[in-house]
Amino acid sequence: MRLSLNPAMMMDFYELTMSQVFFDEGIHEQTACFDLFFRRIPESGGYALMAGLQPVIDYLNNFKFRDEDISYLRSLGRFSEAFLAYLADMKFSCDVWAIREGTPLFPHEPIMKVRGPLIQAQLIETMLLLTINHQCLIATKAARIVRAAEGRQVMEFGARRAQGADAAFYGARSAYIGGVDASSLTASGEHFDMPVAGTMAHSFVQSFPDEYSAFRAYAKRYPESCVLLIDTYNTLDQGLPNAIRIQREILDPLGYRLKGVRIDSGDLAYLSVRAREILDEAGMHECKIIASNSLDEDIIRELLRQGARIDSFGVGERLITAKSEPVFGGVYKLSAIEVNGVLEARMKISENVAKVTNPGSKRVYRFYDRDTDMALADLICLEGESVDPDSYEIFDPVQTWKRKVLENYYVRDLLEPVFEAGKCVYPDYDLASIRLYAQKQQAQLWDAVKRFEFPHQYYVDLSEKLWTLKQNFLAQHANKHRLKK
Amino acid sequence: MRLSLNPAMMMDFYELTMSQVFFDEGIHEQTACFDLFFRRIPESGGYALMAGLQPVIDYLNNFKFRDEDISYLRSLGRFSEAFLAYLADMKFSCDVWAIREGTPLFPHEPIMKVRGPLIQAQLIETMLLLTINHQCLIATKAARIVRAAEGRQVMEFGARRAQGADAAFYGARSAYIGGVDASSLTASGEHFDMPVAGTMAHSFVQSFPDEYSAFRAYAKRYPESCVLLIDTYNTLDQGLPNAIRIQREILDPLGYRLKGVRIDSGDLAYLSVRAREILDEAGMHECKIIASNSLDEDIIRELLRQGARIDSFGVGERLITAKSEPVFGGVYKLSAIEVNGVLEARMKISENVAKVTNPGSKRVYRFYDRDTDMALADLICLEGESVDPDSYEIFDPVQTWKRKVLENYYVRDLLEPVFEAGKCVYPDYDLASIRLYAQKQQAQLWDAVKRFEFPHQYYVDLSEKLWTLKQNFLAQHANKHRLKK
Repeated sequence: MRLSLNPAMMMDFYELTMSQVFFDEGIHEQTACFDLFFRRIPESGGYALMAGLQPVIDYLNNFKFRDEDISYLRSLGRFSEAFLAYLADMKFSCDVWAIREGTPLFPHEPIMKVRGPLIQAQLIETMLLLTINHQCLIATKAARIVRAAEGRQVMEFGARRAQGADAAFYGARSAYIGGVDASSLTASGEHFDMPVAGTMAHSFVQSFPDEYSAFRAYAKRYPESCVLLIDTYNTLDQGLPNAIRIQREILDPLGYRLKGVRIDSGDLAYLSVRAREILDEAGMHECKIIASNSLDEDIIRELLRQGARIDSFGVGERLITAKSEPVFGGVYKLSAIEVNGVLEARMKISENVAKVTNPGSKRVYRFYDRDTDMALADLICLEGESVDPDSYEIFDPVQTWKRKVLENYYVRDLLEPVFEAGKCVYPDYDLASIRLYAQKQQAQLWDAVKRFEFPHQYYVDLSEKLWTLKQNFLAQHANKHRLKK
Repeated sequence: MRLSLNPAMMMDFYELTMSQVFFDEGIHEQTACFDLFFRRIPESGGYALMAGLQPVIDYLNNFKFRDEDISYLRSLGRFSEAFLAYLADMKFSCDVWAIREGTPLFPHEPIMKVRGPLIQAQLIETMLLLTINHQCLIATKAARIVRAAEGRQVMEFGARRAQGADAAFYGARSAYIGGVDASSLTASGEHFDMPVAGTMAHSFVQSFPDEYSAFRAYAKRYPESCVLLIDTYNTLDQGLPNAIRIQREILDPLGYRLKGVRIDSGDLAYLSVRAREILDEAGMHECKIIASNSLDEDIIRELLRQGARIDSFGVGERLITAKSEPVFGGVYKLSAIEVNGVLEARMKISENVAKVTNPGSKRVYRFYDRDTDMALADLICLEGESVDPDSYEIFDPVQTWKRKVLENYYVRDLLEPVFEAGKCVYPDYDLASIRLYAQKQQAQLWDAVKRFEFPHQYYVDLSEKLWTLKQNFLAQHANKHRLKK
């Protein structure tokens, strides 16, 4: 790679070929509405977690084609000079709404909404999707792992197995939103004001004549924060005795306590239990046991169930790639388009029922119980619909006889304005406050929704008006189809 | 993110805390050797494919701490001023060898080798691993998918589901090395001189009053390269008849033929067979059928087995995330370190046999049959060992009685010099030539190695000298351990 990458060029080529046609037809500046949403929660979980908005804002704030980009596009011989000139002058001018980072998300809810010139709303599709898809994926996975650790510390250690530098860099940020306590990635610490953590590798221990010399050198430099990796040669017979010797010979004279020992191989349940006993016998009760090695939420739950004495988990590849389900299937679909000056709803009909979209420009409301502050249900409705502040009947959009009257609630409008006519109007939340907000939001979900196996399906219902609009579209389509045959 | 990301800061924090200690102990400039290798091939395949070297070269060529990085590190209160000053002045000065991009790879072979000041070789670990791990993963997956397509076109369409922008950007490059014909990602086309492809989305069709109007507008702009997405409303009843009408009403008068139709939903086997019949009846024999929708090598093989009439596959999330196994487990291990001016071999002993490393600075030779040009076996040996040009006995490093005498071969030294004392000495291969090289290299593997299910395990053997060195280490360790008990 010779020149630096312009994120504005991170787009599927068809966005450009389509845009050329919109431009030819003179419909490129018609107002269009797109929704970004997903259809299912990874790993059959009960909720997903929003992340990626701040990076999307950075992208949109800098959306601009450079001269070299235009030259490249010209070289492909597929675009008119008038179109290329239009691209070169393009300034992002859309309205954007989004659900705040750290908010629990459910299927079919628009988590971002773009309204603006058709061509612009189309050109940003790829980068919006890849950013939100990746970062929601990791935040959601991290929240699962943190939940499994039941209050114990979790550290993100996955950079070396991430799918590229951005996956590591933004992945660490998303994992922090999802609740991990720190990341090993220095660049993320530098850019996002989040804690970094890390101690030593096996190669460090091997770089010294013996394990004790390696520990001693480390403890002398970092007596106040000393964590020793004890499994390079033999965890219980060598590493742990050497760690205890470090406490006696190096740290005691300096007045410090060993912070922890890390085990990165072998049976973590057995080794941690034995290590705890040996440390306690040596009077080192405050010395923590840190475990790593291909951990994820399933293994952590199983280790804890077996009585492992682990205080802190270092989680690597299975978090940073969301290994057990590495795709967050967000899509970006047209919901309305301007025809003769009026926004007309649009809906994608599909032979696959799950792929039928919700038409029209929409809002998402979350109902909370006034007494418990717990989230009760979400409502997807059309722009401009209001919700009765006292009582509201929700119903299942498929099994419509399933109805429930909500009362004694307060309502949050989840889609917040992010850009107005291309100008960012969104507050610059610091990352620690986003992480705290995510914790509070998750605390407002019932345990049933947070269960790992067969979680309760949280209610996400359509307003009567939106449901009717959708039914009309479906009926229309069926009629057309019937007439043809 | 406010300032731009410096790839040099993409390192696990422990690289820095370890380096501080190396610096304190005065061993930071001792020469060390590290090997980058992996232990198993993803998805139990028969071989992996090398990729990511050019991006690693870019990273190493620009390895430098900026003032703001040093300030950030200072703010953490873990590093001495002398150390920070040393980092600020650091210039990369290591020797690096690597196996060429596009080369088939096998477990335990060093695919990169770094020799230089301990501190530098350590600090670059994270970025080397994440780059090589990610890009080998995608190149290997792409090669599987391309193989499954049996000569049909394969296009990489995954950007929107990639794990971040780099995953999409470099993923497209790696997929191209692995054999795909084009990518949808414009930025990769711009930077890597590789073909981009793409046509239209459902939203394009929906942006017009009806499907035919959308097709007509597109065909008028791109009569020479027109591919129509025919499943927005109904593939066989509406999309296909409209595509045929486009041929008659728009393309025939202009003297062009419709290049293809794309199907993105429904049963691709049935729909492609019916579409082929209908197109042929309409005399549109040259109109290709392009299929997409959650494809991978397994689904492609199954579709072809069922007689699907698909000419071209658009492959998305399952390629760009290597969904079925999204981690390439490359590791970076110390193999030797300078003690009193002499390089001493080092080996990591582990309770997990698979994690025991090969000690010493090494070379990798590949033997090819002189008559058939087919690859026969690989040999990992110590630096300085030569191979008899006429006859060589290889043996299995575990089942040592399994021996085989090779004859009538020529040998390639796989590890090529990339950096000498920090200066890049590597040729700047263009991407098309790397892709071609990958094809030729794969053609030199027996079909048995390329089988999807239970492939033949290609021979990767240790030289007698390396094997003996390893056994000595193991015996030494066992003795030490025994004496202790």
